[in-house]
Amino acid sequence: MDEIVMRALLYDFYGELLTANQKEIYEQFMLEDLSLGEIAEERGISRQGVHDTIRRCEKTLEGYEEKLHLIRKFLTVKEKVHQIDRLLDTWQEKEKETLIREIRQISDEIIEEL
Amino acid sequence: MDEIVMRALLYDFYGELLTANQKEIYEQFMLEDLSLGEIAEERGISRQGVHDTIRRCEKTLEGYEEKLHLIRKFLTVKEKVHQIDRLLDTWQEKEKETLIREIRQISDEIIEEL
Repeated sequence: MDEIVMRALLYDFYGELLTANQKEIYEQFMLEDLSLGEIAEERGISRQGVHDTIRRCEKTLEGYEEKLHLIRKFLTVKEKVHQIDRLLDTWQEKEKETLIREIRQISDEIIEEL
Repeated sequence: MDEIVMRALLYDFYGELLTANQKEIYEQFMLEDLSLGEIAEERGISRQGVHDTIRRCEKTLEGYEEKLHLIRKFLTVKEKVHQIDRLLDTWQEKEKETLIREIRQISDEIIEEL
């Protein structure tokens, strides 16, 4: 997966578990796209300090996913729902019964995943 | 929701974030169904100590859900997939096109949730 997408997902899923200070700095870097130097100047801390905080945030967020795998689980479910969507797109080409059977199989797979 | 089911979900989702010691005690209580006294005796600690650890585990797990709401999200998705399943059960009574439209609406709702 694209690293930027993965970072955004990690923050989206586990960001609330960072401290208020970590969140502020990480958001300035990630969402507001400020440079390390800009964040350092604004907060009156060293550039290295900003850098260390951001690295620590990344490690923390990655640590949560390594333990919980909830992003992986969500992505699997999402992909399967998209599979249903694509099947629905073929509804005119297929027998009703075939279509229903195929959708049910995927929905069963989703239930197993949840 | 039933409290026992909620406890099991909390442990299932966030249990890996407990310490090894907390996990052991919480599992003996929750999964092996040992009493506080039995756990205390086996581990050579006080009954009160076991009680405090279990309360702390529960608070920790609840704290994660309060911050992340991932169980709530999963349950919503699960309910919607079951809605699709129930719709599929009515396939013989409904026009193909109606059925497809109804399923697609739910699958779109799931995607929004994920």
